[in-house]
Amino acid sequence: MNERELVRRLQAKAGRAPGLALGIGDDCAIYRPGAGQELVFTTDLFIEDVHFLRVSTPAEQAGARALARSLSDIAAMGASPRFCLVSLALPSWVNRKWFDGFYRGLLKLARKYKMALAGGDMSHAAKLTCDVMVCGSVAKGKALRRSGAKPGDLIYVSGPLGGWKHKKQPEPRIELGRKLAGKASAAIDISDGISLDLYRLCAASNVAAKIDRVPPLLPGATAKQALHDGEDYELLYTASPKVSVPGFKIGSIVRGRAGSVSYMGRPLALKGYDHFAGNCS
Amino acid sequence: MNERELVRRLQAKAGRAPGLALGIGDDCAIYRPGAGQELVFTTDLFIEDVHFLRVSTPAEQAGARALARSLSDIAAMGASPRFCLVSLALPSWVNRKWFDGFYRGLLKLARKYKMALAGGDMSHAAKLTCDVMVCGSVAKGKALRRSGAKPGDLIYVSGPLGGWKHKKQPEPRIELGRKLAGKASAAIDISDGISLDLYRLCAASNVAAKIDRVPPLLPGATAKQALHDGEDYELLYTASPKVSVPGFKIGSIVRGRAGSVSYMGRPLALKGYDHFAGNCS
Repeated sequence: MNERELVRRLQAKAGRAPGLALGIGDDCAIYRPGAGQELVFTTDLFIEDVHFLRVSTPAEQAGARALARSLSDIAAMGASPRFCLVSLALPSWVNRKWFDGFYRGLLKLARKYKMALAGGDMSHAAKLTCDVMVCGSVAKGKALRRSGAKPGDLIYVSGPLGGWKHKKQPEPRIELGRKLAGKASAAIDISDGISLDLYRLCAASNVAAKIDRVPPLLPGATAKQALHDGEDYELLYTASPKVSVPGFKIGSIVRGRAGSVSYMGRPLALKGYDHFAGNCS
Repeated sequence: MNERELVRRLQAKAGRAPGLALGIGDDCAIYRPGAGQELVFTTDLFIEDVHFLRVSTPAEQAGARALARSLSDIAAMGASPRFCLVSLALPSWVNRKWFDGFYRGLLKLARKYKMALAGGDMSHAAKLTCDVMVCGSVAKGKALRRSGAKPGDLIYVSGPLGGWKHKKQPEPRIELGRKLAGKASAAIDISDGISLDLYRLCAASNVAAKIDRVPPLLPGATAKQALHDGEDYELLYTASPKVSVPGFKIGSIVRGRAGSVSYMGRPLALKGYDHFAGNCS
């Protein structure tokens, strides 16, 4: 496999997206934004032996998960994904079958949201290393931020928690995010467990939070996993009690030290995933 | 160093850019495009032992080169860079001094073009791995593509070639690219030597090319290096003889087999950099 051949193979499968004037094959992709839209951007790494294990991750699932991490961030902004750029450094164990499977999984998830693969980069490395940038669009001023939560707001999670591994495929909450845009006061995707992500939302909003209900759990998951495990692809968000939003109520925003969170009346420790603490999923 | 601390350190130095409504610290960055603009996007990997050697690359230079690779693509589209996202996987040898130096070099180059660091991701890896996405803007319809060259057009390079290592710092041709927008018929950045990049431009434009002058050379560089070496940060572009553009004329576009290039009357072999041929700079 050489780079030109791989690029040609991808061009044929990259898909189209509204506004994408030029995709794979030039120095840059070209996107023409619609009137009244603002764009949101996120990028997420997906690395062998850090985010996934080669032995336990089929190629298609690896491709889907590599994209889903960024899609979950797009969902948390209330935006619609438009296109992605995929940088991929390949180790020598990757053969054509794995390569094709990886992009099949990634592009299957991309098609679900009518988004295109618009470009990227390729190189080689000792461990498979992928970085996926996604651009999404949302009506001007309607993007959800972490910083808008106010005392009295209710806190919601979008679905049962405790580790996505109980599901067959990651399912980022794009549809729900779109519904929340302009309604929720703040949102974040649960990438590192409720404890760390609710801390982040509260710190950004300069408020505190109390959780007074056990969060909804995936079958077989424990409350501890829901509080401290990552990669759930669910959203954590707040809304005024006057606004009706879908989801599971778990508590409320209160005045207090910025970022402090209580769970059933006791302070909740920060035990979420931190890459520099040496965790490995 | 933990991730929250590193993110806080970067937030303070990330800079601002027109249109960037939200930078580091949320699930996504938010950008509000100006009226009449189209956006261009590129991403480039920069990996230890593939693109740079730790022993011979000071941290600041590594940061500047990581960004310059993408800026050169932005220049080739005739666009102005607006913001970047930086994904960085750090090996255990990286200490705070190196980390700070890397971002100092990257942000110094970013400030030169009034662009901001708008976000990114961080993780760990055995080898330092960086992926830099840059978004640029250009007036609608004025972006330069590889595919517009026509028989009779003249071929130019923007400056002396033969390997950027003869220079102290990479200098992507942003200013020149802006001048060429709407004037040049096609453009590409020279990332893999003239032979491979002129092949790419001609293949995209469905034309052939003849080079009838030795390209301008950096002091100490050979014509062979100029033809087949990469990472020059110069542009290769074509323009109608009726249009006046700056640069060094090296030949002209002719009818012929798409992508075929002759040099001083003889076919030019494709010897440019291909990551999957196992090269390492």
